Amino acid sequence: MSILVVGSVAFDSIETPAGKRERCLGGAATYFSLAASYFTQVRVIAVVGEDFTAEQEAVLTSRGVDTRGIEHASGKSFHWTGSYLKNLNEAQTLKTELNVFERFTPQIPADYRDSEFLFLANIDPSLQEQVRRQMTAVRMVCGDTMNYWISGHAKNLARVLESLDTLLINDGEAKLLGGDPNLLCAARKILSMGPKSLVVKHGEYGATAFFGQRSAIGNGGAIAPFRSPALPLAEIVDPTGAGDSFAGGFFGHLASQPAVTLKAFREAMFYGGVMGSFAVERFGTDRLQSLTRAEIDQRFSLFREMSHLE
Amino acid sequence: MSILVVGSVAFDSIETPAGKRERCLGGAATYFSLAASYFTQVRVIAVVGEDFTAEQEAVLTSRGVDTRGIEHASGKSFHWTGSYLKNLNEAQTLKTELNVFERFTPQIPADYRDSEFLFLANIDPSLQEQVRRQMTAVRMVCGDTMNYWISGHAKNLARVLESLDTLLINDGEAKLLGGDPNLLCAARKILSMGPKSLVVKHGEYGATAFFGQRSAIGNGGAIAPFRSPALPLAEIVDPTGAGDSFAGGFFGHLASQPAVTLKAFREAMFYGGVMGSFAVERFGTDRLQSLTRAEIDQRFSLFREMSHLE
Repeated sequence: MSILVVGSVAFDSIETPAGKRERCLGGAATYFSLAASYFTQVRVIAVVGEDFTAEQEAVLTSRGVDTRGIEHASGKSFHWTGSYLKNLNEAQTLKTELNVFERFTPQIPADYRDSEFLFLANIDPSLQEQVRRQMTAVRMVCGDTMNYWISGHAKNLARVLESLDTLLINDGEAKLLGGDPNLLCAARKILSMGPKSLVVKHGEYGATAFFGQRSAIGNGGAIAPFRSPALPLAEIVDPTGAGDSFAGGFFGHLASQPAVTLKAFREAMFYGGVMGSFAVERFGTDRLQSLTRAEIDQRFSLFREMSHLE
Repeated sequence: MSILVVGSVAFDSIETPAGKRERCLGGAATYFSLAASYFTQVRVIAVVGEDFTAEQEAVLTSRGVDTRGIEHASGKSFHWTGSYLKNLNEAQTLKTELNVFERFTPQIPADYRDSEFLFLANIDPSLQEQVRRQMTAVRMVCGDTMNYWISGHAKNLARVLESLDTLLINDGEAKLLGGDPNLLCAARKILSMGPKSLVVKHGEYGATAFFGQRSAIGNGGAIAPFRSPALPLAEIVDPTGAGDSFAGGFFGHLASQPAVTLKAFREAMFYGGVMGSFAVERFGTDRLQSLTRAEIDQRFSLFREMSHLE
């Protein structure tokens, strides 16, 4: 099944304890697409500027990602500058140059409209909603957001949340959105806002899924939370894109399965962790460009061995 | 098999967002013993003062814990005063009154010497070593420590570490002891100091076990880390003793098994999380006094359901 993703395709200038890179290919939609491309067909909606070259587009197309929905606008591409020197677990944003992203109005190519899975990456919730409303036939919608939208665009975000099957955010975002320092209480509050399920990413500690009463996969009954592990790594070269890679592995696996069952959802959590663990091993999207499905499945087996009693 | 534990039996005065308690029964050996008592026979070595009543001793003996090794000294019992008002994940120590603990010299009753399992709770490493040296026939030794001993008593601690099968500490302690902010690198460093395996507790995120090359349970081969979950709880009434209860469930299960296999070790990690999750549900040792084995095994099943793909 095809996934349609809307989000940023951008340039990142990054400094981490492992080194420094200027203007690597980045953006949530880029990381998501590359990670999901190992599982299923991916179609991207984004905007780039004149500085986005054929070589950069080929990073996506060589992985089979459909880039016809990437609009080429006059001006410069979105450029994010960040540092992880103070804290590997949280990026410090040094500069955000929105450039062409400032006037982005997502256009959905006619050929994209039959996509059955929709991922709303972390962008302005009013844009997320625009895309969501036009995709009337989708089977499953996942979305991401961040503190900036939670604090400053709550009303628009609320409309997006109502229409989500799964919200994927991190601990801090969940506690802010749920208005509670206790994760379970925050999760319950968030599930009451609309999403049928919630996946909270804990970085090096894995992730937890919470399911609401409306969750289709539970046959109406209450489902216990589900915890997936993360891989202890001796070096995190570049944490950028780990969350989007998690989302790509998660949603990519779900879209590749015959049905969204609880078993498929659990496996998807593991594949999310697997893709996140690869993403941080090298700068930018380097590692996600060069994987094989065998490497992915081998690491999936390791995740299972790391967390299962037998 | 019997576990011998040496550590503190004390009074705790605790303030948490859920309320306040004065002089509840506490101490690492108390939490450990109660948690382990659901799995196997436990013998305690500790010292208490004249303020320790028969009623308090009965909390332990009514769970079948052998308290003949608790020395009754003149003076007052160890008394810890702490607060979790600022941070539920980390106690703020307001007062430490060592009292009779200041002159504690562990005496091992003759009847205790055939104990096959030894737990060295968090006390002065020179006392841990004294006990360790006298218990020459033990099959497995686990130990705990804390920042105070890591920073200020490194030499004495080093001798204890050399003799441990498993060291159980939390994230911050592991990073301090290993001298590395990366958990895997810190774990490798710690394993090079002597312990055959290391269990790092992550609070609400569960725990991770790391195994050294000397680990007897791996048949000499390298063993991947193992991650066990923690239960998302809507309310943490009192975090005091969660780590010691984890240790009690962990070691209690291992001591109850015919052999310390990798499978038993993994199950022990789960039972550790289970006992920790019960401990924090009520103030002090209240919850650990009133459990049934059926409740424990039911929660073990929940931990499995929460973390296993099928």
